Formats: sequence, C-alpha cells, structure tokens
Amino acid sequence: MAPIAFLTDFGSCDWFAGSMKAAIAAVDPQATVIDITHDVKPGDVRGAAFVLRACAADFPAGTVFAAVVDPGVGGSRAALAARAGDYFFVGPDNGVLSFALDKCGAAAVHAIREPRFMRPKVCATFHGRDIFAPAAAHISMGIALEQLGPALRQWVRLAWPSAVCEGERIIGEIVYIDRFGNAITSIEAALIGDMRGRKNHVRCPSAPPVPLAAFYGQVAEGEPVAVPGSSGQLEVSVNRGNAALRFGLEIGDRVEVVPDSAA
Amino acid sequence: MAPIAFLTDFGSCDWFAGSMKAAIAAVDPQATVIDITHDVKPGDVRGAAFVLRACAADFPAGTVFAAVVDPGVGGSRAALAARAGDYFFVGPDNGVLSFALDKCGAAAVHAIREPRFMRPKVCATFHGRDIFAPAAAHISMGIALEQLGPALRQWVRLAWPSAVCEGERIIGEIVYIDRFGNAITSIEAALIGDMRGRKNHVRCPSAPPVPLAAFYGQVAEGEPVAVPGSSGQLEVSVNRGNAALRFGLEIGDRVEVVPDSAA
Amino acid sequence: MAPIAFLTDFGSCDWFAGSMKAAIAAVDPQATVIDITHDVKPGDVRGAAFVLRACAADFPAGTVFAAVVDPGVGGSRAALAARAGDYFFVGPDNGVLSFALDKCGAAAVHAIREPRFMRPKVCATFHGRDIFAPAAAHISMGIALEQLGPALRQWVRLAWPSAVCEGERIIGEIVYIDRFGNAITSIEAALIGDMRGRKNHVRCPSAPPVPLAAFYGQVAEGEPVAVPGSSGQLEVSVNRGNAALRFGLEIGDRVEVVPDSAA
Repeated sequence: MAPIAFLTDFGSCDWFAGSMKAAIAAVDPQATVIDITHDVKPGDVRGAAFVLRACAADFPAGTVFAAVVDPGVGGSRAALAARAGDYFFVGPDNGVLSFALDKCGAAAVHAIREPRFMRPKVCATFHGRDIFAPAAAHISMGIALEQLGPALRQWVRLAWPSAVCEGERIIGEIVYIDRFGNAITSIEAALIGDMRGRKNHVRCPSAPPVPLAAFYGQVAEGEPVAVPGSSGQLEVSVNRGNAALRFGLEIGDRVEVVPDSAA
Repeated sequence: MAPIAFLTDFGSCDWFAGSMKAAIAAVDPQATVIDITHDVKPGDVRGAAFVLRACAADFPAGTVFAAVVDPGVGGSRAALAARAGDYFFVGPDNGVLSFALDKCGAAAVHAIREPRFMRPKVCATFHGRDIFAPAAAHISMGIALEQLGPALRQWVRLAWPSAVCEGERIIGEIVYIDRFGNAITSIEAALIGDMRGRKNHVRCPSAPPVPLAAFYGQVAEGEPVAVPGSSGQLEVSVNRGNAALRFGLEIGDRVEVVPDSAA
Repeated sequence: MAPIAFLTDFGSCDWFAGSMKAAIAAVDPQATVIDITHDVKPGDVRGAAFVLRACAADFPAGTVFAAVVDPGVGGSRAALAARAGDYFFVGPDNGVLSFALDKCGAAAVHAIREPRFMRPKVCATFHGRDIFAPAAAHISMGIALEQLGPALRQWVRLAWPSAVCEGERIIGEIVYIDRFGNAITSIEAALIGDMRGRKNHVRCPSAPPVPLAAFYGQVAEGEPVAVPGSSGQLEVSVNRGNAALRFGLEIGDRVEVVPDSAA
C-alpha cells in the first residue's frame, strides 16, 4: 500500500506529530507513514507549500500527503482532500497544498465534511489529529474523495514566483534555503538546459558571478556554484560551504541567469 | 497489532532512539513504532510525565508506551511495566509514568526483572535499549506483565498540580509550553464548560485579561485568547503569535479563570 | 525482514530524509526503516563514521545501513555497497562506512554501478535518494552485492584513534560528545576491565581526577564519573549533569586512565 507522508509545523519537541500518527494507526494499523518534515517554521504556509511541491514527485504513485500548517484551525477555512496526478493530498484550504496541486495537475478537490471519517470528537485546535490524519488514512485505504464531502470549484492558491525570460536573461528569485545553505531558486533547471549552447553564469546579491556546473565539486572548495537541484530548480551553493551564510542570501532575493558576454 | 510509542530525552543527534528501535526490531520485526518525542529536556522527568499524560488517550487501545527519561539509570530504581486503562507502559520508577497511570487508572504495576525479556547483555547506562525496548516489544506481542516480574504495591508518583475552585474562581498553573508558545494549564477545560452560563476571562502574569474562546481565530491576529486545548486542558495562546514569548509566561505561573464581573 | 537504518546529515527541516524513504517505499513498500540520526553536522564524515560504528551492533542481523554524509556527491568518489559481519552497508566512498566496516570485519565491498538498481534519473546532487536508498532497499530484498557492481580492493579508511597502553596507563582521546554532554573516548571499556585488580582513575583536561564506576549514580549528583558506555567505550560523565560543558571537553582531547598511585 502507498505511504502516507506528513508535512507539518508541529516540531519535534511536543507530541503533536505522534498524535497524528496515533490517529492514523487507529484507522489503519498497517499504514506506512513517512515524515517529510515537522520543522516548517510555525505558521509558514508558503514555506510548507514549497517543500511539498519540491518532494511530491519523489514518492510512489498513490501516496497520500497530509500537509498541516494551519494557523487558522477551527475557523471557517475548509478542510481539503484532493487528487492531483498520481497523488492524494489533505490539508487546510490556506494555500499549503496549492503549489503541489498546480504542479501535479489538480484533478479533483473536495471539502472534508463527513463526520464518520473524522475522530469521534473534533477539537477546534487540532484538526491534524482529528480530521486530516483520519482522512489521509481512509483515502490510503481506498475511500473515494466524493465520500469525504462535496467537490469544490475554488480553493486558495498561492502565486508561484515563476521565472521570467527577458532576452538572453532568465530572472527568478530565491524561494527556499535548505540546511546546507543552498539557495533554491524559482528557475527551473530545465530552462538553463535550453541555453547550454552558450556560456552563462548566475548573478545574485552580494555574490561574485556564480558559474553553472552539474555538481558542487566542479568548483574549488569554498567557491560558489549554481547547480540543477534535486527537485528540478536551479540552486546557488558553495562547494563544501554554506552559500546563504556566505553571501547573506534570503528568500525573495532576485537571481538572474545571464550570458557570460553580459558580465 | 497496536503500536509501541516512544517518549525519551535522547534527542535526535545521537543514535540512542535508533538503538531502542533496533532492540524492538530484534524482538518483533513487524512492530509499528511511533515517536511521541525524543526532545524532552535532558533529565526532565516531570516534563515527560506531562507529555505522556497529554497524548496517551490519542493512541489506539493496546498501545505500549515506552517512556525513558532516566537520569538514575543503573542505580536502584525499579524498571516498571504497567497496565492502565486500555494501555501498557514501561519506564523507570522515577515518576515519568505516574501522571499517565493516574489519569488512565493504573490496574497493575510490575517490576521488570526477568532476564529472558531483556537484551542478553544489559548495560548499566542504557536500559532504554537493553530493558525497556525489549519489554515493550514483548508486551506488544502478548507477554503478560506477570511474566516480566513481581507486582508492586508502590511506585513513585509525582504530584499533579490540580486546579482549585475558590468561589467563582478556578485557580491553576501553567504546566507546559508548546513549540507555538501556547501555555497549557492544569485547568481541565471541562471545568470551564460548567461556567458557561456566565462570562469569564483568564488572568495570568504580565498579560491583560484574556478572553475565553473555542478557537484561536475568534480574536484578532496578535491578540491573546484562552481555548480548550487538544489534550483537554485550558491553554493561553495568541492568535497567530507566541503567548509565552509575548507575555513571558513560564511553567509554574499562576493562572486564574475569573468572572468578568470580578475584573 | 531486517530493517534499513538511515544515518545522514540531511537534518530535519527539509525533505531530504523523507525523499530517501520515498525512494525506499518505491522499491519495497513493506520495508522497515529506522532513523539512526539525520543530525550529523553538515559534511561531518568522521562524526557519522563514529556514530555508525557505535550503534551498528545494536541492530538485528541482516540490517542494511545507509550512511549518507556526502559532500563530494556527484564527483568521482565511488558509491559503495558492503557486507561486514552480519550487516550490509551502503554509502559514499569517503570513509563514512570505514569505522563500522573495520569493526564488523569487511567481507566484501562493491561499487554500485548498475543503473537498474538506481532511480531512473540520477541527480548529481542527491545520490541519497537516487542511488543509496534504492540500493539499500534492493539489498534488503536479497539482491547480491555482485549484482550492484564490481568488487573493490580498496576504499577510503579513516584512521581510528586507537588507545595506547604505556606501562600502567591507557592513553586515548575523546571521539564523540553526546547530547547529555557525555564525552565518549577511544578507550575500549573492556581494556579497563583487565585492570580491575588495582584502582584507577581517569584524567582529562580541566577536570579533577575522575573516578571509575559502573553507572552514573555511584557518585554524588554533579560529580564527574567515568563509566563503560553503551557502545563499549569508556566515557566521562557528570552524574545528572553535562561533563562536556562543565569541563570544556572537546573531541580530540587527550584522556588517560592511570593507577591511583600515580595521582
């Protein structure tokens, strides 16, 4: 059976992720649960949306993703269950699913309303345990989205910061910084592929021109390098170093791929 | 089969939690292990006892909890295996199990002494791996507590800081602060339910009077609010904010529910 | 079936460990995965090598260890699959496996080269997901190492800082500091066993003479003590305290076991 994958801002110090897994086990003791991360910054819906988009395609077909970053829990926002590409998703209707739904191609989005697929008592501050985890378990066992609640025509969609081509330049921005200090950009690495006929480099704030390469070790230790990252986006790195710390890179910073002749 | 749930202060940087799971797998390769948390502050028996009490009821009947916060490991404290309500518990006899045993209703508490349910070689500094994990696996496979060792009539019980009703006031204290900065109190939310006929608010140090609500979003962003938390205790929060940081709240701080007329 | 055990420097904030598990699930949905830790310091090959050596013997026979601390990913270093003692190991050829291979007795070391045991598309910055996780899953399902690629006669071996006996002294060094501040040394505890006929103590920088004991509680709270650690090495601790912080101990510091008469 396909796994259930968790993505939350519940952290690792309290019991919240454990209680979600308990709710899964109560529905399906045989479920396979994979933690993507529980360390999204508290309330950082956009960061979680990026992570989900970055890793969804790594999972086997049929995986059910439960993405719970939910500062509006208990209020009027809907609880969503969706199908997109080969995957299923549950999470609050605040945009946390939207980058992944857009990338995978949302085929159906439903509101979760049917109490028999929730915990008997739903706490207004913990829908992760009482609504999303049970829904994920039921979907993974084959319940159709239609049974969870009515189809929706609209849901909250965050704007993906698409890269723009201007003449020979590609202009994007930094969308995520990982634990190694790699700055992941909104520029699809495949776009660069199309420009391989000529030489390019990357410009970002406070850094010297950054050469393009296939992997970190193609530049000397401590030198910056831009590589196609493992989720398909161009990323700015330092070989055996931390690019974000070294150059003070931040989410939202402008990044450009430019021909060497423009240097 | 019901899961085995782990709660320790072993952290995530070393190999200790992994070695406990290895010890489980050696007894039962099919066991389902759920991490509650491994990030209890080193040696914080009381904090771990609170977490176990807070989440135990979220787990399916038959779950075996292994709670290992054990600064006295290797000394004379007993190793406990207990049954309470629908659950089983193993852990050192230092109080770490006691809040949960009291809440679930301890039915039987045994000392773990039988070497054939331990690892062949027991290290005096790691009973988590050599005694508690194997015991949890054996219990989850159906071994009776009687086989592990003799029944005990006494064990270490920490004092739960019960809330007190004084006239129209309920007086309790902060017992836990979660990663979102929510200050969980010793006041059972059900107690407040009984007072719904009249209007109440919550008083805690350095904060303005805090209104009661069913969920965070019933007050404006950045405003304090007291809600019934997901483990049944009243908690003091800030909508999309961090109450503990904002008001300097700490474990042990006095909290009162008072009628609005007393303001 | 024996578990697959993960040891990486991927941290818990991003999705990298989750994506490795997704790659496992794609090959074997029934696999049991155990996290040793993902919090090795970024790029700390030697630290990871120590952790793997420390815990390998805790796992059941047949366990496949995937140790991915891989700053040279994408470059010319080989990808290894090895058998040693009752265990299997996969990881980059940078020494991360070497302490464990040496301790368990390496029986066969192969280069992983066969594309049909990798993900269809191998990213030059994420061999954990695309090479090592699939290889681990295939090995755990019974694929012979020979099928993954050719046998190697050489691989990178880090030098283990063996303890040295000089007359009645044993001289070693601190090789690891755990989350409790215990300073684990290169001195096998069994060596001390041989000296039990006479009284010894431990000397390390900035600390008073440290008595030997079987467990922490044999000295008063707050006092230093040297005990046989759970992975077989002598360690310097403080009963209910943090030895590393208290005495400023660091990896590489010299440690000596000396007869009391030499004090």
